[in-house]
Amino acid sequence: MASRQRCLSMDNLNPHIKELEYALRGPLVARSFQIQKELKEGVKKPFTQMIRANAGDCHAMGQVPITFIRQVLAMVIYPAFLDNPHFPDDAKERARTILDSCQGGSVGSYTNCSGLEIVRKQVAKFIELRDGVPADWQNVIVSAGASDAIRKVLRLFACDVDGQTSGVMIPIPQYPLYSATLTDFGLARINYYLDESKNWGLDVLELKRAITEGKKVCKPRAIVVINPGNPTGQVLSRQNIEEIIKFAYEENLFILADEVYQDNVYEDDCKFHSFKKFHVLFEGLHGRMWFSCRICGSDQYVPQIIGQACLYSITNPPQKGEPSYESFQKEKNAILDSLKLRAKMVAKTFNSMEAITCNPTQGAMYAFPRIYLPPKAIEVAKSQGKEPDVFYAFELLEKTGICIVGGSGFGQQPGTYHFRTTILLQTDTFKTMLEKFTEFHTEFIKNYS
Amino acid sequence: MASRQRCLSMDNLNPHIKELEYALRGPLVARSFQIQKELKEGVKKPFTQMIRANAGDCHAMGQVPITFIRQVLAMVIYPAFLDNPHFPDDAKERARTILDSCQGGSVGSYTNCSGLEIVRKQVAKFIELRDGVPADWQNVIVSAGASDAIRKVLRLFACDVDGQTSGVMIPIPQYPLYSATLTDFGLARINYYLDESKNWGLDVLELKRAITEGKKVCKPRAIVVINPGNPTGQVLSRQNIEEIIKFAYEENLFILADEVYQDNVYEDDCKFHSFKKFHVLFEGLHGRMWFSCRICGSDQYVPQIIGQACLYSITNPPQKGEPSYESFQKEKNAILDSLKLRAKMVAKTFNSMEAITCNPTQGAMYAFPRIYLPPKAIEVAKSQGKEPDVFYAFELLEKTGICIVGGSGFGQQPGTYHFRTTILLQTDTFKTMLEKFTEFHTEFIKNYS
Repeated sequence: MASRQRCLSMDNLNPHIKELEYALRGPLVARSFQIQKELKEGVKKPFTQMIRANAGDCHAMGQVPITFIRQVLAMVIYPAFLDNPHFPDDAKERARTILDSCQGGSVGSYTNCSGLEIVRKQVAKFIELRDGVPADWQNVIVSAGASDAIRKVLRLFACDVDGQTSGVMIPIPQYPLYSATLTDFGLARINYYLDESKNWGLDVLELKRAITEGKKVCKPRAIVVINPGNPTGQVLSRQNIEEIIKFAYEENLFILADEVYQDNVYEDDCKFHSFKKFHVLFEGLHGRMWFSCRICGSDQYVPQIIGQACLYSITNPPQKGEPSYESFQKEKNAILDSLKLRAKMVAKTFNSMEAITCNPTQGAMYAFPRIYLPPKAIEVAKSQGKEPDVFYAFELLEKTGICIVGGSGFGQQPGTYHFRTTILLQTDTFKTMLEKFTEFHTEFIKNYS
Repeated sequence: MASRQRCLSMDNLNPHIKELEYALRGPLVARSFQIQKELKEGVKKPFTQMIRANAGDCHAMGQVPITFIRQVLAMVIYPAFLDNPHFPDDAKERARTILDSCQGGSVGSYTNCSGLEIVRKQVAKFIELRDGVPADWQNVIVSAGASDAIRKVLRLFACDVDGQTSGVMIPIPQYPLYSATLTDFGLARINYYLDESKNWGLDVLELKRAITEGKKVCKPRAIVVINPGNPTGQVLSRQNIEEIIKFAYEENLFILADEVYQDNVYEDDCKFHSFKKFHVLFEGLHGRMWFSCRICGSDQYVPQIIGQACLYSITNPPQKGEPSYESFQKEKNAILDSLKLRAKMVAKTFNSMEAITCNPTQGAMYAFPRIYLPPKAIEVAKSQGKEPDVFYAFELLEKTGICIVGGSGFGQQPGTYHFRTTILLQTDTFKTMLEKFTEFHTEFIKNYS
């Protein structure tokens, strides 16, 4: 029976799945967990603890959960607490509203596929308040996390049109969920490059170049815009957004606006503008837009009702006069202020190093510095079969315990090298990281020059 | 611009998605929600409330959540309660264990894609205890609900092999998630029929007939078995399972064993046997099997950590000597006893009616009675462009407010008609439903005879 073919093997597996690559879950991260185990087992290392700057995983990095939201969730899960004097009335009111709209009064029940009506209405209200233009709650569809929504929307395009493969424009650098999903669904990928010299700006001329190239091999049907940027941390200007919408209109492209970091804007002269806001300026626009509802941003899969309860609480926070108002504002601002502080620190520190440049982190939770690797380092990397930036990241990991992600996982201009770091570590640890990083980098450049 | 093609329309949408049909979410259910609204608005109907027997949605039907599990979840969400004297020590111990294994000690963090190590180990332990044979925790992968897992596994097969479309064997009647997923992924569907005359039994001769047919148009690669059955409620015997495994081995098929209702077995001479248990009897078997981890069964999307915490609590329930043991057993048994009572009632009642036969509900949460529709009813249905069983279900809905699902949504032998009803309504309401159903059915048969 040795020659019998396995019913599922690398030879007969869906080839799209084989091609999948997800930088955020690759060998570097695997090695980091192995190192963590080795440290626990007492293996000697040049460091005593791992410093994780690889994942946009706020709570793992010590960000404190917002009390109000957790209170609402605790009560919907355990309704006996609705009578507990420990909880403030505004949290109770939110919890009761959610429970009242669940079938059987239990968060263990199913909801409509599009989400609970009260949640969708609340999200629409939130969007109206944010944008100052009407939002129809029936166009709000709650998904099990942003990844789920992105997959579901892209799935709609997964077919040939007029004998051509459908294509989707994505930024480079990008969040690798997009490239992975396009690969999985057999959709053509049209790269457009963000301009590092202009603060990772999005130039319409580059969009035009990219779509012209794309049309040679596929039928472009949609464009992904990530704002604020991941991994690049830029915030698009109003003018830029309007240009992109015009371009999409002219090219008849569906816009997927990934706006999960809309609350995370740090620079005083930057402001978040939603794509939806300007939609109405172009009456008759046929490219319908879609908005990630993953404002909560902490679960890859939002659970059917618990996640919706979370979304409801976030879009319906305590108002002035309600008992939790002050504490909610205080907790939220503390988080944003500390992110802002680290956003400033990160660019400043990296720009002070030799052979690194770094655009400011205007928003989101990341910086994407460029490293100017000496030719010798590139040579050694290639001799090991590694991308040079991945080689750099491995060296950093083994020598300092700092875990970042090599730029090649997100895409970059050929011949340039980068890495993504988060700004999520608590400030003291973040300072330590930047110090150790500086030391490592100086040594690395010296060794390979 | 009127002639401009929309960038996403029915003309250029992924055709697999257009074909998707999901009986559980179709026009009948939509109409039932409309009726519910009309009742609220005071529209006169022959009934005053909807009776939902269409969805396997336990909590919506008034099933009471298990206190122990809710306590664990409340504490992992709101860890301040770990010090609350209201909660028993065993629930606290579970909550602490889960929180200790979360990064940053928060359920708001991400976990490994396969799930938390402690959860996977606990599930493996649960399976070992259940089956009496070893289970490797590294083979346990936690998914965001059974639907997610089913989609992910079937996705692996979505490709041509040796120039042939891959095919998957599914039972008829089946849970429509399977047919929908196969359609979505462009996989060929090979129907095998369950034998209604043998209590919805699974006959290997029928499997052989089906695969022989299937091989004419595709390359059969996997077989789905639902045990206990949905919508059919049968429980497979040990002998039957062994035969299926042998068949799968001979045909080199991957077995997808959907065992989400393993706890729901009502007949004294039936016993649940997992497919995994007998796997080891056939050393060298190449068809690897996969097991739905959706033992909790209450969320379509299990959230990343909250759902895992739920799974952990269910597979690690209070043991003898622990403070919650008695109350947990009492609550669990009360639920199972009341389901058992209704499982007996449902077949007995339907079998007492004219022109209906109904196999016993040995397990799961459903019955799938056969209705012998008069030719005149079939004629009227067809003149309205409806499947006869859907016509029957619509009539029932409009006349009595009872919502069931027509058999054509699950598949049935051509020329036979069925419907699926759940046994989830609380016992008093369930009795009322059966009474009203009897009245309606008698009238219906009389009218169309």
